[in-house]
Amino acid sequence: MTTIFDAPEDFATSALAGFCAIYARNVRPVKGGVIRSTQVPNGKVAVVVGGGSGHYPAFAGYVGPGLADAAVAGDVFASPSTAAVARVCRHADQGGGVLLGFGNYAGDVLNFGLAAERLRSEGIDVRVLHVTDDVASASVEVRAKRRGIAGDLVVFKVAGAAAEAGKSLDEVERLARLANDRTVSFGVAFGGCTLPGATGPLFTVPTGQMALGLGIHGEPGISEEKVATASDLARLLTGKLLAERPAGTKKVAAVLNGLGSTKYEELFVLWTAIAKELARAGLEVVDPECGEFVTSLDMQGCSLTLLWLNDELEALWRAPCDAPVLRKGTIIAAQQATDFFIDVDGPLTFEPASEASQESGRCIARLIDSIANALKEAEDELGRIDAFAGDGDHGQGMRRGSAAAVDAAKAAVTAGAGAASVLAAAGDAWADRAGGTSGAIWGLALRSWSQAFSDDVEVSDASIVRGARLALDGVTRLGGARVGDKTLVDALVPFVETLEREADAGKSLVEAWSAAAKAAQEAADATSALEPKLGRARPLAEKSIGHPDAGAISLALTARAALQFLKEPNILLTGSETSEEHAAALADAHNRKAAGQA
Amino acid sequence: MTTIFDAPEDFATSALAGFCAIYARNVRPVKGGVIRSTQVPNGKVAVVVGGGSGHYPAFAGYVGPGLADAAVAGDVFASPSTAAVARVCRHADQGGGVLLGFGNYAGDVLNFGLAAERLRSEGIDVRVLHVTDDVASASVEVRAKRRGIAGDLVVFKVAGAAAEAGKSLDEVERLARLANDRTVSFGVAFGGCTLPGATGPLFTVPTGQMALGLGIHGEPGISEEKVATASDLARLLTGKLLAERPAGTKKVAAVLNGLGSTKYEELFVLWTAIAKELARAGLEVVDPECGEFVTSLDMQGCSLTLLWLNDELEALWRAPCDAPVLRKGTIIAAQQATDFFIDVDGPLTFEPASEASQESGRCIARLIDSIANALKEAEDELGRIDAFAGDGDHGQGMRRGSAAAVDAAKAAVTAGAGAASVLAAAGDAWADRAGGTSGAIWGLALRSWSQAFSDDVEVSDASIVRGARLALDGVTRLGGARVGDKTLVDALVPFVETLEREADAGKSLVEAWSAAAKAAQEAADATSALEPKLGRARPLAEKSIGHPDAGAISLALTARAALQFLKEPNILLTGSETSEEHAAALADAHNRKAAGQA
Repeated sequence: MTTIFDAPEDFATSALAGFCAIYARNVRPVKGGVIRSTQVPNGKVAVVVGGGSGHYPAFAGYVGPGLADAAVAGDVFASPSTAAVARVCRHADQGGGVLLGFGNYAGDVLNFGLAAERLRSEGIDVRVLHVTDDVASASVEVRAKRRGIAGDLVVFKVAGAAAEAGKSLDEVERLARLANDRTVSFGVAFGGCTLPGATGPLFTVPTGQMALGLGIHGEPGISEEKVATASDLARLLTGKLLAERPAGTKKVAAVLNGLGSTKYEELFVLWTAIAKELARAGLEVVDPECGEFVTSLDMQGCSLTLLWLNDELEALWRAPCDAPVLRKGTIIAAQQATDFFIDVDGPLTFEPASEASQESGRCIARLIDSIANALKEAEDELGRIDAFAGDGDHGQGMRRGSAAAVDAAKAAVTAGAGAASVLAAAGDAWADRAGGTSGAIWGLALRSWSQAFSDDVEVSDASIVRGARLALDGVTRLGGARVGDKTLVDALVPFVETLEREADAGKSLVEAWSAAAKAAQEAADATSALEPKLGRARPLAEKSIGHPDAGAISLALTARAALQFLKEPNILLTGSETSEEHAAALADAHNRKAAGQA
Repeated sequence: MTTIFDAPEDFATSALAGFCAIYARNVRPVKGGVIRSTQVPNGKVAVVVGGGSGHYPAFAGYVGPGLADAAVAGDVFASPSTAAVARVCRHADQGGGVLLGFGNYAGDVLNFGLAAERLRSEGIDVRVLHVTDDVASASVEVRAKRRGIAGDLVVFKVAGAAAEAGKSLDEVERLARLANDRTVSFGVAFGGCTLPGATGPLFTVPTGQMALGLGIHGEPGISEEKVATASDLARLLTGKLLAERPAGTKKVAAVLNGLGSTKYEELFVLWTAIAKELARAGLEVVDPECGEFVTSLDMQGCSLTLLWLNDELEALWRAPCDAPVLRKGTIIAAQQATDFFIDVDGPLTFEPASEASQESGRCIARLIDSIANALKEAEDELGRIDAFAGDGDHGQGMRRGSAAAVDAAKAAVTAGAGAASVLAAAGDAWADRAGGTSGAIWGLALRSWSQAFSDDVEVSDASIVRGARLALDGVTRLGGARVGDKTLVDALVPFVETLEREADAGKSLVEAWSAAAKAAQEAADATSALEPKLGRARPLAEKSIGHPDAGAISLALTARAALQFLKEPNILLTGSETSEEHAAALADAHNRKAAGQA
C-alpha cells in the first residue's frame, strides 16, 4: 500500500525533491531528473539513465562516480517526456557524448529515442541502449523484445565504470551492449503494488501461490505456482537463468533484488540457498549484491540477475563506485561542483519569420486552443474509457498536454515565431507536460506535422495535408504500432488516408477534413472489437474487448474539434487578450478564413 | 508477509549467514553474531550492539569502522542469550573495554546485563547502555522506561564515532548517554508484520487509519487516527518531538525510518514535508538520513528520530563511517583482518572437584535429565497455554533449553566437574540455547542456585534450600518481575517460601519439596485471574485473562518433575551410557538417596 503522499499526481516530483535533499552530497536536482553534484572531468562520456518513478533506487539512486552521471524521472510507472530526457542529457554532457540507458518499454524506447534524435541534431553524440534482461518476457530467440528489470543496475554499472575509466563513447557503448547481451534475470511475485491514491493493489496473488515472471509495472506474471521454500525458490530462479549460461562461463556477478515488501532478511535467507545452487553449477560468484535495486513501489517479490563474466566485464563490475544505492571500494570524494547553472528553459528565440507565416502561427495557436477546450470537456469521459483496461489517466494526460501546447504556442506567437515553429513548440510542450507514451506520440505527431510548414510562408491547404502524412509516418516509425493493435494509429491511418484521397479529388480542406474526421470516428468506434497488442493494456486484454481504445477516441475527438475550428476560425484564444486584441484576432480570423478558402 | 524461508526456526540464523556472505568485506560471522572483518586498533573501545532479529539492518548492518565493532543477533524478535552476548563481546574486545548498546526491552536488559556481569568477572570492563528514544512508550518524567526504536542508530553512531576517535571507555559511555538523553523518536503504523511461518500479521490497522506510537515487535500502537496527508503526518511527527526540544537547541540530526513496507519514495515525500516543519521551527538539520534502519519485518509504517545537537554531538554525528547500512564521508578501507581465530567454545575445564561433589554433580545431571524429559512431554501443552496471549513458543524454548542443559551437565560430569560447576554449566547452556527472556531467567536461576553448592563437598539438603533462595533473588533482581505481574515469579515465590518454611520446621527435603511444589502449582493456576504487567503479553493483556501464565505453569511442572526424582533418584541418564554405567548410576542413586535421607 502506498500510503504517504499529499496529492497523488505530485508523488513522483515530491519524492525526487526529498531524495535530492537527503542526498545533496551526491546529486543536485534539474528539471525532470538529477545530475551529479560532484565535479566531472571534461570530455568524459556521460551515462544517463532513467525511466518512470516508483522503482527507487532506480534510477536517481544510481547517480554518482563510477555509475551514472544523471537520471531522468518520469511520473509513477510512466516514461519521462522527450523534452525531459533531452534537457537532463544537455546538463550531463561533458563533451564526450552520452550513453542513454533504460529498460526496454514502449514509452521509454519512444521518448529516449526521440530525445537522442533531437540531441544529435544539436551536435551531441548519443548512443541508445535498451536493457533486455528479463528471460520471462520473451524467448532467447527474440532476445531484443525482452523487458528490462533489475538487469538495469548491472548493465549501467558496467557502462558507468567504463565511462569513469575514460573510455571513448564507442567503447562504452560496446561494453554496455556486451553486458546487456550477457545479463539475464528472472523474478517471482507474491503480491502486487498499490499506486498512490489507488484503493487496492494492481493485482493480487492467491495466498500460498507465487506468480512467475513478474513485471515491474504491476504486470502480474505469466503463470502461478505454489509458494516454494527458500531452497526450492533458489532452484527455480537459478534453473531459469542457468539454461542460458554461455558455454565456458566460470564466473558470474549476481544481484538478488527485492521488489519492495520482500525484506532484506528474506533475501539473505534466499541468497544462502542461491549461493549453494551456483556453487553446485561450478560458478564462482563475484561481488554479489542483495537488496532493493529496482522496485515496484511496495510489491512483494524478488528477482535474480546474473551477468556472465569475462575478464573485462569482471574488472568493470568490481570497479569502485559511489552512488546512493551502491558503493564499492573507496572513491575519494570528488570536489562538489561549484559551477552555477540555471535550470530553466532559456528565453524563447525563434528564427525570423515572415508576417504571413506569423499570421498562420497565430491561427495555429487558436486552433490548438479550441482543441484543448474540447479535450478539457472530454477529460472525464476519456478517463472512463481508459479505465476499462488501462489506468484511467488518459483524459488527464490529454488535458494536461493540450493545455501546455496552448501556452507554448501563445508564447511562440508572442516571440514572433512562424507557423512551423509555433506548431513544433506546441508539440514539444505537449510531450513534456503530458508525459508517458501518449504524450510522446502527440508531441511527435505535432512536431512531424510542423515539418510540412515553414517560418517563411503562409500555411497552405496542401501543406496541411502533407503534414498529416508526416505526422502518421513519425508516429508509426517511432511508436511501432500498426493498424489493428488497438491504439490511436487505428484512427489516424483512415484519417490521413481519407484526407489525402478527398484532397486529391479536389475537395476543399473543410470538406476533406470533414470526411477524414468521420472516418477517424468510425475507426475509433470499431476498435471496441479489437484485442490490444501493445502497451500497458495488454495484460488486461480480455477486459478491453467491448470497449474502444481511448487513444483512438481522443484522436477522433481532436479531429472533430479541429473541423469545427476550420469551419469557424474566429474562435477566441482563451486567456489574457484585451478586447482590442480580441477585435484584432477576429479580424485575423476572417482574413485567415478568406485565405484558406482562396 | 514473510514468505521466503525454509524452516521458520532457522530464519534468523540463515538470514545472518546470507548477510555475512554478501558483506564479507565488512563482517565475519561468529557464533550468535558478527564482528568486523577489518583490522581494529589495539586498545580501542569496542562498541557491541544487538537485539532480536527481524529488524535488519539493525543490528548486523551497523558493523564497520566508525560505527559498531560487533553485533549480537537473537532469534526473530527475541533477545540473544547471555552466552551469545558474552561470546561476541569476547571476540570484539581489543583491551579497551566494551560499550554494550541495545534497545530497552526486558529480555535484552536481562541478557545484556547478565553478560556484562559475566564479562566483568572475567576482567573485561563493560558499560551497558539502554536506548530509550520512543516518546510514545512512556512520558518524559519516566524517560528511562521508554523503549528503544530507531534512536538506536543515532546513539550507536555517536558511540561508534567516539570509540573510533580513540576516546576512553569513560568518555565513550558519557557521550553515548548524552546522545541517548537527547534522542527522541515517534512512529506510526499502517499495518503489522507477519512472522516467518505465521499465517497472518501480528496486528492489522483498519483501512484508512493509522496507529500512533508503534512498537517494533508487533506492538500495534497506543491509539488510532485517520490516515493523514504527508503534510499532516509531518506535523504530527515533528509536533510530538518538538514538544521535548531542549531550550536553545538550534541544530538536529534526523533519521526518517521505514519499518519495512513503507517505501523509500514515500519516505522522501514525507521528508520534504518534515524538512519544512523543522525549518519553520528554526532548526537546522544536519546530515539527515532517510531509509530503513530499524525495521520490523514487513511492517507498514515509519518513525522520525531527532537528536538535539550540541557541538560535540554534531562532530560525532558527522564523522565518517563505513557500515553496510550507513556510509558517511570517506574511510580508506582498513586492511582485512588476517588473524585466525577459532569460534567455538574452548575445551571444558573445571576446577578440581572432590569425589563427593562429583558424585553430587552426577546426581544433578540425572535430575536435569528427568526434568528435560518432563518438559519435552509437556511442550505442546505449554505452547498452547502461551499462545493465548504470547507467541506460543514457550514449550519449544523450555524443551530446547532443558535439553541443552542436560548435554552441558553430562559434558561437565565427564570432565570431572563438581556439583556447583555442573549446575552452573547446565544453566549457561539453557540460557544460550533457549534464548529469549525465559531462557535467560532459567539460566540465571540455575547459575544462582549453583552458588549454594561447591566443587569441594557433597550437596546437602540445607544447601539445596539455600540455593532456591539464591535463585529467587537472582531472578527478581535482574528480571524485575514482582508477584502479581503474571510471570514465573508468581509460582517461584511461594515455592521458595514454602520450601524454606517446611525445612525450618524440620521436614525432610522430599516432604518440604512436595509442599513447595504443591504451592507452586496452586499459585501458577491462580495466575489465570491476573492481567500481565511485563513482557510481550502486555499489549494483549485482555486476551490473557482466564488463562494461566505459561512460565508459572512450566515452573510448577519442573518442581513436580524434580520431586519425582527426589523420591526415586534411580532414574537413568538418557543417552550414551553403557549397561555398566547404568549399573553404576543405579548404585550411585541409591547411595545418594540414603545420604539425602540421613
